[in-house]
Amino acid sequence: MNESGALRGHQALGGGAEFSLIRRLVDRWGPLAADIGDDAAVLPPPPPGTVRVISTDACVEGVHFRPGWLTPEELGARAVTAALSDLAAMGARPEFLLLAFTLPASGEPEVLAVADGVAVPVAEAGARIVGGNITRGAQWALVTTVLGAARRPVPRGGARPGDLLVVTGVLGGPGEALRALLADEAPKPWPRQRFAGPVARWREGVLLAEGGASAMIDVSDGLAADAAHLASASGVALVLDPARLPVGPGIATQAALASGEEYELLAAIPPDSLPALHAAWRGNPLLAPFTVIGRVEAGTGVRVDHGVVPVGFDHLRGGQTPP
Amino acid sequence: MNESGALRGHQALGGGAEFSLIRRLVDRWGPLAADIGDDAAVLPPPPPGTVRVISTDACVEGVHFRPGWLTPEELGARAVTAALSDLAAMGARPEFLLLAFTLPASGEPEVLAVADGVAVPVAEAGARIVGGNITRGAQWALVTTVLGAARRPVPRGGARPGDLLVVTGVLGGPGEALRALLADEAPKPWPRQRFAGPVARWREGVLLAEGGASAMIDVSDGLAADAAHLASASGVALVLDPARLPVGPGIATQAALASGEEYELLAAIPPDSLPALHAAWRGNPLLAPFTVIGRVEAGTGVRVDHGVVPVGFDHLRGGQTPP
Repeated sequence: MNESGALRGHQALGGGAEFSLIRRLVDRWGPLAADIGDDAAVLPPPPPGTVRVISTDACVEGVHFRPGWLTPEELGARAVTAALSDLAAMGARPEFLLLAFTLPASGEPEVLAVADGVAVPVAEAGARIVGGNITRGAQWALVTTVLGAARRPVPRGGARPGDLLVVTGVLGGPGEALRALLADEAPKPWPRQRFAGPVARWREGVLLAEGGASAMIDVSDGLAADAAHLASASGVALVLDPARLPVGPGIATQAALASGEEYELLAAIPPDSLPALHAAWRGNPLLAPFTVIGRVEAGTGVRVDHGVVPVGFDHLRGGQTPP
Repeated sequence: MNESGALRGHQALGGGAEFSLIRRLVDRWGPLAADIGDDAAVLPPPPPGTVRVISTDACVEGVHFRPGWLTPEELGARAVTAALSDLAAMGARPEFLLLAFTLPASGEPEVLAVADGVAVPVAEAGARIVGGNITRGAQWALVTTVLGAARRPVPRGGARPGDLLVVTGVLGGPGEALRALLADEAPKPWPRQRFAGPVARWREGVLLAEGGASAMIDVSDGLAADAAHLASASGVALVLDPARLPVGPGIATQAALASGEEYELLAAIPPDSLPALHAAWRGNPLLAPFTVIGRVEAGTGVRVDHGVVPVGFDHLRGGQTPP
């Protein structure tokens, strides 16, 4: 490890302090932060049969969260998870990260805890930190750039009439937590956990992509809004069955449709891909379940319609209800 | 172009405003911002015979500059240039960028001007913007991730005793501009131009790398400090000849040694590579000149020593003084 390098502080952090801080971060990350030390990191070629995808995402105090809402560990983990979720939505397996930290003057005591939080989803994904930046600023901010490998990258624009719509996980937690936090109430444990400790669904995204998904997006703006993005990109209409939505305890359907920062995946899949997807899910305890919640039709926009997915559909198609 | 996508605003910017802003940015950039619209961008494989390198760099108001020091166009161009300079230091040609904008509440009228500034070095390098993020925040910040292709990536740690040290450009301008700005004086035109409108030396970096440079770094912390980084990474001593430093008008040698954010390149080169480098420079008006300023010895640290590069050295070696 070098004292400066692709993970840099410039003079903005002031003399030796920046390098000391970078050293402490890189030491803390251990083998998760490999090959830090040059002006830029050299990337190996993507694994055979894959293409490399890239995305960048910002998590800013006062905008994405307020002081006191998240522990420093949660801040770090959540920022990385939000970025990894963009890879998940492409069907890509995480490979590399670059992290640009902005620290308030009071932030130095917390930065190692933020780094510990960062390490959790990075280690869990088997990814590596290959670069970054450290600077002072008025507020905490973490800009995370993520690179991943996809055998079959899935765009937003590939949904076709006749496709089924599936969503991973259980919706509504982050929205309910945010409602409580903004009302100065303590969020209940499940919503708080979903808000403060979301999980990037890259395992699910890879399986959906390789299982034939025609379009995919992560639920960051809320299911209804992200469904509208997918519908618009694909030039189709999406019809959601409210009775089918996987909604958390005590969450109203409307609230689940509006709940943002879920980091679950919404995918369109050809109906005949369903049995193989169910088979891939079976017996894999690491995977969040997925649920068929609607279908793709000709037209535009998003409609919510009871009965759009017939009862017993999964059975008729030979699939199983998700675990 | 899609209304959302790899260049995203999330809900943090508020409803339709974010998408409208992204649309305006992408429209403004035209062909410079291609294939924006999915959760992540798919990267083509690096050109044959090259490896891909990546770096990320932050430019934050109140830290890297103060309100009023830079026009919005300069802010955008400078942030991108600082990031491209990291590619230059690896000997990489710029290919792709991702831009994470943080806007203060008052920043919206300026954002298209910042985008215009961004476009200048991007277009000049023939690169493309493939993703990004937009969010609100307390102050302007631009985090730029850059990807480039290098035939022969040059680390900081490859300098060997006997190598010569060369630096591109003319030093001292940004340091003098900063001194004046901090003293509430108007900087003179040359220092101001060097501070507000630096140029990333990627053309020079590619030629130095492919011409055999053994180690390279960009001068962002000041020549003396960056020489120390290079010496430390290489496990060698660097000896600089103060009489040889290419110093700007009215700049003292000490000030030139300390002047940061130059975005010039410091490289170690084997002496026998000098004639071919001079030949490569000859008649190319796009290149900043380079100057032999010292040599690499066994040992550690950085020394400043008159006469370390003998007068007439270039002639004896068969090279020429740079144009």
